[in-house]
Amino acid sequence: MRIRGNLIIISGPSGSGKGTVCKAMFDSMTDLHLSLSATTRQQRVGEQDGVDYYFLSRPEFEKMIAEDQLLEWANVYGQYYGTPMEPVLNAVNQGKDVILEIDVQGAFLVRKKFPTCVLIFLIPPSRLALEKRLKNRATDSEKEIEQRLKWAESEIQQVAYYDYLIINDEVEKAAYKVVNIINAERCRPALLDIESLMNKYRV
Amino acid sequence: MRIRGNLIIISGPSGSGKGTVCKAMFDSMTDLHLSLSATTRQQRVGEQDGVDYYFLSRPEFEKMIAEDQLLEWANVYGQYYGTPMEPVLNAVNQGKDVILEIDVQGAFLVRKKFPTCVLIFLIPPSRLALEKRLKNRATDSEKEIEQRLKWAESEIQQVAYYDYLIINDEVEKAAYKVVNIINAERCRPALLDIESLMNKYRV
Repeated sequence: MRIRGNLIIISGPSGSGKGTVCKAMFDSMTDLHLSLSATTRQQRVGEQDGVDYYFLSRPEFEKMIAEDQLLEWANVYGQYYGTPMEPVLNAVNQGKDVILEIDVQGAFLVRKKFPTCVLIFLIPPSRLALEKRLKNRATDSEKEIEQRLKWAESEIQQVAYYDYLIINDEVEKAAYKVVNIINAERCRPALLDIESLMNKYRV
Repeated sequence: MRIRGNLIIISGPSGSGKGTVCKAMFDSMTDLHLSLSATTRQQRVGEQDGVDYYFLSRPEFEKMIAEDQLLEWANVYGQYYGTPMEPVLNAVNQGKDVILEIDVQGAFLVRKKFPTCVLIFLIPPSRLALEKRLKNRATDSEKEIEQRLKWAESEIQQVAYYDYLIINDEVEKAAYKVVNIINAERCRPALLDIESLMNKYRV
């Protein structure tokens, strides 16, 4: 009955819990396709090409930029990160839902190239809650955390441009909301084979 | 966090299973508000005013029409049927979701007056399946069933104007999809108190 899948973007400030919520969601929905990023950064011990990232050389990445083969990309401290378009389009055209976990800036870039994507904004209930998360994960300095909190404050201003907003107070509850959104979006007439339904009603 | 509820319209051809699906859905979601119709037809034994219908006199109903107090109305074989607007608005403004089970024509009339409503189209998987249901419920003559099947065929042409399409092959599955849609629609930024969220992120 489905003729097309959805591109579901889970976005939100750094530290909003995107990764944890996605993991919980993948536990309860097994038919999703996780979009994989490409990067030029060094492959770390234990990381696998095509599993953790597509690890590309700088010329390979720049060729993809030049040929418009990325849904979005950014240069972070001299290393490229981006979302290759082809695997996403292939999955969606095969009727699969693709999940893309990405920051707020990236989300809006993707929507420009893929206007029918579904944008979900995930955010902890308060600045204090976000600050706690950032401190707990202990990957950022005090100064970086302060910067990320400032960004979060300005990113919330964009929430009206999102299709859905999820307050991430509990991981399981937030993941359940994402599952509901994915299931609901599967009922959009534009994704379904209306022509064949109509045929089943003709005499 | 919610500042407004949704008006969820469950619509579809006569015999599509709207009532059965709604019943199953109300069993699993207890915080919904079912919209009640008003009618001028005779109250039957066992029916209660304000429970089964709002039973109105003809002048009362015509006053509501004249004062634009109905979301939609129709005259069926000389008796009026319609949806009073005030109880729906009150519930929605109190942050409650209102469920309105209504035919296709009525659904589009409601959307004109309440453009932010959520339109769900429910339909059995084929003409044959619909025919079986209509014959099983045994309330219509052969001729009426033939007429209803013809209407269904033309009503499907409208499905692209709906927000969601649910093929009702199994009641439990269809009800689960409606529940998912209701939960998803609760995450719309326009229904949530964004201002208070923003305040929680200001220093």
